[in-house]
Amino acid sequence: MQQEQTTPRGLFITLEGGDGSGKSTQSALLAQWLEGRGRTIVPTREPGGTDLGTELREIILHRRGYIAPRAEALLYAADRAHHIATKVRPALERGDVVLQDRYLDSSVAYQGAGRVLDGTEIRDLSLWAAEGLLPDLTILLDLDESIGRTRLDGARTKYDRLEDEKQDFHARVRAAYLELAAAEPERFLVLSAADSIDTIAERIRDRVSELL
Amino acid sequence: MQQEQTTPRGLFITLEGGDGSGKSTQSALLAQWLEGRGRTIVPTREPGGTDLGTELREIILHRRGYIAPRAEALLYAADRAHHIATKVRPALERGDVVLQDRYLDSSVAYQGAGRVLDGTEIRDLSLWAAEGLLPDLTILLDLDESIGRTRLDGARTKYDRLEDEKQDFHARVRAAYLELAAAEPERFLVLSAADSIDTIAERIRDRVSELL
Repeated sequence: MQQEQTTPRGLFITLEGGDGSGKSTQSALLAQWLEGRGRTIVPTREPGGTDLGTELREIILHRRGYIAPRAEALLYAADRAHHIATKVRPALERGDVVLQDRYLDSSVAYQGAGRVLDGTEIRDLSLWAAEGLLPDLTILLDLDESIGRTRLDGARTKYDRLEDEKQDFHARVRAAYLELAAAEPERFLVLSAADSIDTIAERIRDRVSELL
Repeated sequence: MQQEQTTPRGLFITLEGGDGSGKSTQSALLAQWLEGRGRTIVPTREPGGTDLGTELREIILHRRGYIAPRAEALLYAADRAHHIATKVRPALERGDVVLQDRYLDSSVAYQGAGRVLDGTEIRDLSLWAAEGLLPDLTILLDLDESIGRTRLDGARTKYDRLEDEKQDFHARVRAAYLELAAAEPERFLVLSAADSIDTIAERIRDRVSELL
């Protein structure tokens, strides 16, 4: 009897959380573990996961001068549309595991926290761009912004207005992320970024095991 | 008694039609006539009516390699969002007349004719980008594609498959334009591009007079 060749089912995992929450570290550990189990990993990110995306990322992040808020949202969505169509979907069809740093939840949380555009509209725009593709699993590394503040500014005792505003912005991003996770508990795994690297990695492996 | 200073109402006029239908010529004639009546004209175009737009136009029109259809539509929409927010709306608020080469009807007609994306979705995307701004008047210079064909290929008797396909595409663009005009007869002025330049210019002036 001929042995059956089965292609494993593709898996789409996104990592979300503020800068410094440990996304890269956990992504690398998970990739290593999955490769040990014979899976092919496609690590990627938004914005900038493709050549076109790199050009757009350059425009969005490094361009001098004002960009209208809706134009910025549409550039992120264009990056997303191209990235999902040309890199993520083909990888999933091959049966690979896509480990992606930031996806539509970032857009909703950051835009919503900026209070300029409506979160629901941003989500609809992202889903139109991605033809409805949602991750199998989204790992949210949740970091209490007051810890970040303590870590960052241990020696200082005063904050200026800009720092307070930044603090306030990060608190709103965090709240928006937690709201998204609460609305889709099946898709989200929320972990405290304050736990040890090993503890977090183990919890991620436990959850991913169920999906393999 | 002090003389009242009244700012004229801004006017947003778009020109639509295939390449070679005479949009630039008519736009220039209309601008000249309006300036003679004391109005300030802002001639502009999409894509590429701003600095950001020029960069995006470069990417859309001259980039080597594939761009996913939704990414392309989103880049056009990003250009539109920035252009309307930073150039067109401020001009209208000053009371100027904006004469714009191509707007959302181009996106709907060309994308629809390409048969990849749904025209209604493209229209919704454009309106989101532009925060709902529709022109006061859209001049459609309608050109029978068989005339273009005759003009272009008078000497030849044979067409290859690619030429037939292009012909077919232009026929679909034209049909899509006429359908849009039929759906919004108040906004559209449809003129035959086969008429003389003077005849067309006179009809445009007649209609614009009503709006001043």
